[in-house]
Amino acid sequence: MDSSNENGMSTSEQRWVYPFSEPDGPGRDLLGGKGAELANLARLGLPVPPGFTITTEACRHYLSTGEPPESMWAQIDDALSLLERESGRTFGHGEIPLLVSVRSGAAVSMPGMMDTVLNLGINDEVVGALAHNYGPGFALDVQRRFMEMFAEVVFGVSREPIEAVKADSLASAGSHRIEELEPADARELLEHLSSVIQAEALRPIPFDPRDQLKQAVMAVFESWNTRRAKDYRAHEGIPDDLGTAVNIVAMVYGNVDDESCSGVLFTRDPATGEKRIFGEYLTRAQGEDVVAGSATPLPLESMAEAMPDVHKEILDVAARIEAHYGDAQDIEFTVERRQSFILQTREAKRSARAAVRIAVEMCDEGILSREQALLSVPADQVYQLLLPRLDETDAAQARDNGRLLTVGLGASPGGVTGVVALSADGAVKLTAEGQRVVLVRPVTSAEDVHGIIAAAGVLTARGGATSHAAVVVRGLGKPCIVGAESLEVRADLGQVRCAGKTVKAGDEISIDGGTGEVFIGTLSTVEARVGEEHHLARLLGWADEFRRLGVRANADAGPEAALSREFGADGVGLCRTEHMFFEPERLDLVRQMILAASAYSKWPEDELNAWRYRQVLKELQGIQSDDFEEILTAMDGMPVVIRLLDPPLHEFLPSHEELLDELHEMREQHASRQDIAEREELLAAVDELREANPMLGLRGCRLGIVHPEIFKMQVLALTDAVRALKARGMSPRPEVMVPLVSDAGEMNAVRAILEEALRDATRPGDEPFAPSIGAMIETPRAALLADEIAESAEFFSFGTNDLTQMTFGFSRDDAEGKFLVRYLETGVLQRDPFQTLDQQGVGGLVKTGMAAAKRSGRVLEAGVCGEHGGDPESIDFFERAGLDYVSCSPYRVPVARLAAAQAAIRRASGNSES
Amino acid sequence: MDSSNENGMSTSEQRWVYPFSEPDGPGRDLLGGKGAELANLARLGLPVPPGFTITTEACRHYLSTGEPPESMWAQIDDALSLLERESGRTFGHGEIPLLVSVRSGAAVSMPGMMDTVLNLGINDEVVGALAHNYGPGFALDVQRRFMEMFAEVVFGVSREPIEAVKADSLASAGSHRIEELEPADARELLEHLSSVIQAEALRPIPFDPRDQLKQAVMAVFESWNTRRAKDYRAHEGIPDDLGTAVNIVAMVYGNVDDESCSGVLFTRDPATGEKRIFGEYLTRAQGEDVVAGSATPLPLESMAEAMPDVHKEILDVAARIEAHYGDAQDIEFTVERRQSFILQTREAKRSARAAVRIAVEMCDEGILSREQALLSVPADQVYQLLLPRLDETDAAQARDNGRLLTVGLGASPGGVTGVVALSADGAVKLTAEGQRVVLVRPVTSAEDVHGIIAAAGVLTARGGATSHAAVVVRGLGKPCIVGAESLEVRADLGQVRCAGKTVKAGDEISIDGGTGEVFIGTLSTVEARVGEEHHLARLLGWADEFRRLGVRANADAGPEAALSREFGADGVGLCRTEHMFFEPERLDLVRQMILAASAYSKWPEDELNAWRYRQVLKELQGIQSDDFEEILTAMDGMPVVIRLLDPPLHEFLPSHEELLDELHEMREQHASRQDIAEREELLAAVDELREANPMLGLRGCRLGIVHPEIFKMQVLALTDAVRALKARGMSPRPEVMVPLVSDAGEMNAVRAILEEALRDATRPGDEPFAPSIGAMIETPRAALLADEIAESAEFFSFGTNDLTQMTFGFSRDDAEGKFLVRYLETGVLQRDPFQTLDQQGVGGLVKTGMAAAKRSGRVLEAGVCGEHGGDPESIDFFERAGLDYVSCSPYRVPVARLAAAQAAIRRASGNSES
Repeated sequence: MDSSNENGMSTSEQRWVYPFSEPDGPGRDLLGGKGAELANLARLGLPVPPGFTITTEACRHYLSTGEPPESMWAQIDDALSLLERESGRTFGHGEIPLLVSVRSGAAVSMPGMMDTVLNLGINDEVVGALAHNYGPGFALDVQRRFMEMFAEVVFGVSREPIEAVKADSLASAGSHRIEELEPADARELLEHLSSVIQAEALRPIPFDPRDQLKQAVMAVFESWNTRRAKDYRAHEGIPDDLGTAVNIVAMVYGNVDDESCSGVLFTRDPATGEKRIFGEYLTRAQGEDVVAGSATPLPLESMAEAMPDVHKEILDVAARIEAHYGDAQDIEFTVERRQSFILQTREAKRSARAAVRIAVEMCDEGILSREQALLSVPADQVYQLLLPRLDETDAAQARDNGRLLTVGLGASPGGVTGVVALSADGAVKLTAEGQRVVLVRPVTSAEDVHGIIAAAGVLTARGGATSHAAVVVRGLGKPCIVGAESLEVRADLGQVRCAGKTVKAGDEISIDGGTGEVFIGTLSTVEARVGEEHHLARLLGWADEFRRLGVRANADAGPEAALSREFGADGVGLCRTEHMFFEPERLDLVRQMILAASAYSKWPEDELNAWRYRQVLKELQGIQSDDFEEILTAMDGMPVVIRLLDPPLHEFLPSHEELLDELHEMREQHASRQDIAEREELLAAVDELREANPMLGLRGCRLGIVHPEIFKMQVLALTDAVRALKARGMSPRPEVMVPLVSDAGEMNAVRAILEEALRDATRPGDEPFAPSIGAMIETPRAALLADEIAESAEFFSFGTNDLTQMTFGFSRDDAEGKFLVRYLETGVLQRDPFQTLDQQGVGGLVKTGMAAAKRSGRVLEAGVCGEHGGDPESIDFFERAGLDYVSCSPYRVPVARLAAAQAAIRRASGNSES
Repeated sequence: MDSSNENGMSTSEQRWVYPFSEPDGPGRDLLGGKGAELANLARLGLPVPPGFTITTEACRHYLSTGEPPESMWAQIDDALSLLERESGRTFGHGEIPLLVSVRSGAAVSMPGMMDTVLNLGINDEVVGALAHNYGPGFALDVQRRFMEMFAEVVFGVSREPIEAVKADSLASAGSHRIEELEPADARELLEHLSSVIQAEALRPIPFDPRDQLKQAVMAVFESWNTRRAKDYRAHEGIPDDLGTAVNIVAMVYGNVDDESCSGVLFTRDPATGEKRIFGEYLTRAQGEDVVAGSATPLPLESMAEAMPDVHKEILDVAARIEAHYGDAQDIEFTVERRQSFILQTREAKRSARAAVRIAVEMCDEGILSREQALLSVPADQVYQLLLPRLDETDAAQARDNGRLLTVGLGASPGGVTGVVALSADGAVKLTAEGQRVVLVRPVTSAEDVHGIIAAAGVLTARGGATSHAAVVVRGLGKPCIVGAESLEVRADLGQVRCAGKTVKAGDEISIDGGTGEVFIGTLSTVEARVGEEHHLARLLGWADEFRRLGVRANADAGPEAALSREFGADGVGLCRTEHMFFEPERLDLVRQMILAASAYSKWPEDELNAWRYRQVLKELQGIQSDDFEEILTAMDGMPVVIRLLDPPLHEFLPSHEELLDELHEMREQHASRQDIAEREELLAAVDELREANPMLGLRGCRLGIVHPEIFKMQVLALTDAVRALKARGMSPRPEVMVPLVSDAGEMNAVRAILEEALRDATRPGDEPFAPSIGAMIETPRAALLADEIAESAEFFSFGTNDLTQMTFGFSRDDAEGKFLVRYLETGVLQRDPFQTLDQQGVGGLVKTGMAAAKRSGRVLEAGVCGEHGGDPESIDFFERAGLDYVSCSPYRVPVARLAAAQAAIRRASGNSES
């Protein structure tokens, strides 16, 4: 039967097999990564064992029809004949028999996910010839290796019975290493293995090497669809229909004698990036022995003494390979009787620090252009580079020792060790005593902010990645874990319980805000300083030359702004003015304001209250003006986008339950009437302000329209700050942003309030002060009707956090704990839309808004201030969507600078992600 | 100076004035409604006093420049000369002097909002001539009327000093009516009036009639911008830049003698619609006297005896006018010495009942086509027609007697009187005792549903129009008032307090769910029955012939479905399956399910719990199957859209605070360990399920993906119900709807769950049962990506309630109480987007979704199931957007039928609202 392949060609005419030595073979799509690279190295004249590749297309044919393509075996036979000629050996017989490895190799790297069979092609005649050439011990060892691997990979026999037989054999022979068995014992072991395998698999290992080959090839095909391979692909976003290629390579033996070995090398130090060959090898070993770790390999340097010529050859070859690929390589090699072979090369995995150094130095060496150097570093890695982190060796030890307490949601990366505080006040107190503190709370609220500011890290039992704790702590660049649901935080008992363990206040714990791991006890941390990261500084300098997008920071106070500036921010893209109110000595004032505002909106004619309202607003104005001065000073000469008060007022109040409890207690303890009355007034306000869905309630511009006095106060404070700075000869550049707009009518109403305040604030002789006023585009309607909103906005800033929430109808706080994880696990969604912008839905709205901004001619600038502003993939989208800047948390500024440069380079070269 | 008008013409060439007698004058835009109609009647040869109109454009010119157009006065002089010729009288002098009225009249009716001056053109010579012709009493009375009106309208003199002078004059003359004063007393009164006016206005009334005219015209122009006129326009949505026309009309006098009178008539009875002239008149009176109500007018019939010829002439003229306009008219007339004149005609305001009857009878009479008849009834009025309501006379009395307790938000119209119950159980108990009950609660929750079902009406202190109470009660078609914030509901004390008054449980109150009024005590109600509304039935029958849109009902149970069918629904567009669980005997089972589901999702290996989960699901399946049977039976042969469980599970649980209180109490009273443990388990579940923003949390299809067992149970129940109905020879037509979709991945996941359940449910020999599965489009993303969702949906249903919430970012529960009212009052928004679809934003998303549905070829039907489905203006949009059906609450079905017909007619005639 002559079925047709994907291209409509008859399968009998189709090439399914390509020798490495073929001058113009196809690429990775058909040959897989490994096959393509080996062919490539062979073409470069590097010492690669001869071999050939069966294409991914053959695999796809097999997986969809259950049969390999008809002509495949004939083509394999031809390729095998060529291989015999190239290697000077013969497959399955002869004086110098040819053994082969059968290796998987997909187009996309899936390390360790699929199967391999080594030393294939053995029968009694072959064993005899091998024994004759290399000694009987070698021959029997190779046969054993083959039997084990074939049984496991092709027959699916589990390791236990095999290991049991080997253990018996070692015990009865009184030996420690299988390789050291006497030939007689080894032969006995092989017989035992043979019967165990037959018993387990219900069939013997085929005697005919060609049958071995057939079965191994089909087993490799099938290994594409193992559970772990599928899971890996789902996790990495690799399509399920690619299939794997199969590489048949002539075996070379690192286990022949003391002048044979197998090893691995990195062309640059994968931890530091230093330019030095970093490798290890094991004498008398095949490659798998190096990886298995059963014996300790030697550093590559020591080969320089033992076999200087071989050592030099390997270094030369490694340098040629690196230069060819223009990237640090991870190379597997084997030396058979002083003759070296390259078995595989691939991009070296490396630390963030190494990635940056390698990129910069390769550029200096002329191997990479600046564009290539910039593209070679995953932008996200830069983030890790700047954070202190737990020492990985320590952490591994702690895991082994059972000191891992629990794993929560890593909400803000970095590592820290500190003593546990169970209340904000406790955190402040312990910090004041000079301790480093980890604040542990069931969940955090505005009342905890002073504790969060004092603490070195935060851990909560509830909340998602956008919970109060996560947002505040991330802004501060401190490690934070949220949603560690198994923690029972009992501040009343002064302890935290988890899975039978108890940690008391004052005990030391260590948290890793990246992985979400919580350890009992101290772990050492590794610090990094920007100034010391010379390579990073150079790379980011290059990034600034290439990027088109501005990078601003989300910063709410002077120190954060200063840090952002140090990290290279072009300004502040989001200053959340409410964060200035969360400090404890201000919280009380803010509460007075809320009570007065509430009363004023109901009884405007109550003059005593109106007076009280004005007084408290005046006091807040002074405080806010100082705050503005500080941040504008830190960002002198750069734009600072001041967002008007956004959160619902109840966020500044204690919770209903808390107040009820307090009142209960106060009454029991016969507190003063006035104290009780005050709490009752607060409770009534909390009750009145309570909302069913606060995210969609009385906040943002709605707040300013209902309580115009508050927005006015903010503008007055800003005017005061600007006046003070100008008097000092500085150049403040504030812009005023109106949050949560959904209709042009809101924009007009707020603009009227602000303009009135600006008029009121102008004193005779003042320079005119008219900051640009912009709209935060964070409701779907604002994006859909951006044309109208543009009529009264001088800039747009896309608030993609809320825009994502409303476009999907996901409350992030609720979604992350309750269903988003399930969605991602089961593939209902491919990506977490809060991490990486949903380009179709939310991104579509951003594009709609941008088109309106450009049409209007009035909106002069458009940025993004959601967390997506610090996510490289999202930044690539924003570059293509034509935004002017992104704004992100200070620690993400370097990431965004690099990502923006990469996006610009990709866009210029037409390689943007679509 | 020669300024230019709006059309760029030189103002000196521009026509600013048009006589009524001009054969081809312009329309309402320039002449205003009154001017255009008077010219129209004049052209028909009807007895209209001669006159002319100054255009709205002249007004606009005046309002924008502060000056009337240059050539306007000259044109008025010309028109006045013509008027003198037409009337045979002379202005300001001569034997038969011409007096005129100066009346405002905008293009859009703004009754009573702007100013009018009557009897203008008086000076001493004129008074003499009038006295000679009509007698001195008449002349002096006319002069007095002029002076009063001119002072008030042109000079802005307040009424108090004028009334004081009149009262003095009556007192000193010992007379009761001003009109009956002796000439000497009248003259003295005029002198006093003259000096008071001069003292108040600091100037005299001009002696020259032309000056009077000039000042009056400009005063009428200016009356366009009085506060009340502006407020009225803001409320009615009338643009502020239209301006008013001014009509100068020759005065005719109904106050000359006993054969003179002024009156008003309706061509049909405005209360019942019956075809009979319904009018009143007052002898020896000017029109204003009839309206003022200072004397009691006579019924028009009595004129038949006094002046049969005049009576007949008036009836004839009225019939001609009605026939001309094709609508019932409200006509003002004056008879001067047995000669009748028509002063104004306009569409008669009428009750809902009258509107329907008039439309149907006029169609029968051949005056209106069916299309015209259908368009003549405001669709919303039909709703009122079908609800029992408080008797208006009773209500007016109750208001006067101080029995109006408070006014809340009318959430579901209709009137009811009943005894107060302060708890759901109380409502059930009192109803069982045969009482009619009004349930009064601070706010309602799922636990109150049995009480709501029992009660005849519901009143709550908190909540908006989409609060739990409002939605449930509206569905039941019972009166409901929510958000009556001034009520303090103290179930603990068995009383409700409000503004110093106290109502106890068991006291009678009356509520009007339309106006939101709450009365103390009993008021009589007026009932309406569908079957008895013959005219309505005919009108709706015609509507069904014309409408293209299907009209389905939102119905959750059999009785509601039956009622909807009686109201003419074509099926059920939304069956909220959760509502079936809210009954108290089921609530406990639902809670068991929630606890088991929660546990199962965490510990699927806990077999005891898994068994418990299966058991409770099976029990619920039985109940739900019965419910489905009931509703499918009621809608036999018609489509029924079954929405899978939608609300977050915590809606079925008591509140956190409630449980804490209960536990507190149980512990104090040493309740059994097991009882306490059960409550504690419930509390833990409530705690776990708590959400920050439940509207955007774990609900809808997310629930089904996290707990697939629940959706499966629902499909199994549906299959059972369908099997049972088919066995009875019926034709059930269920469709299954997936709520809250935001990604095609969700649709696919749920479809897989449902299809598995359908396979599981199939028994050997079953007819295949594969209901169509559709997506509820209620997140912005679902609309934006409807193309993808259409791949796995056979129908769409736009959930415009949630779509509005998410598009605006408004939580309706929060918005209505906290800022939406302010928005509407201050004009930030023109319309409440929850009442009438936001056509630009939300409507844009509906259009996007519809375009995708049509492109797909797979989505066969698309409807709307938000509350907008019952709103006429929104229905007009849905007609134009090409939807297949709307679905609304049962009582709104007749409204929707009529509105759908109107929309189709408008669309066919190209007169759709844009």
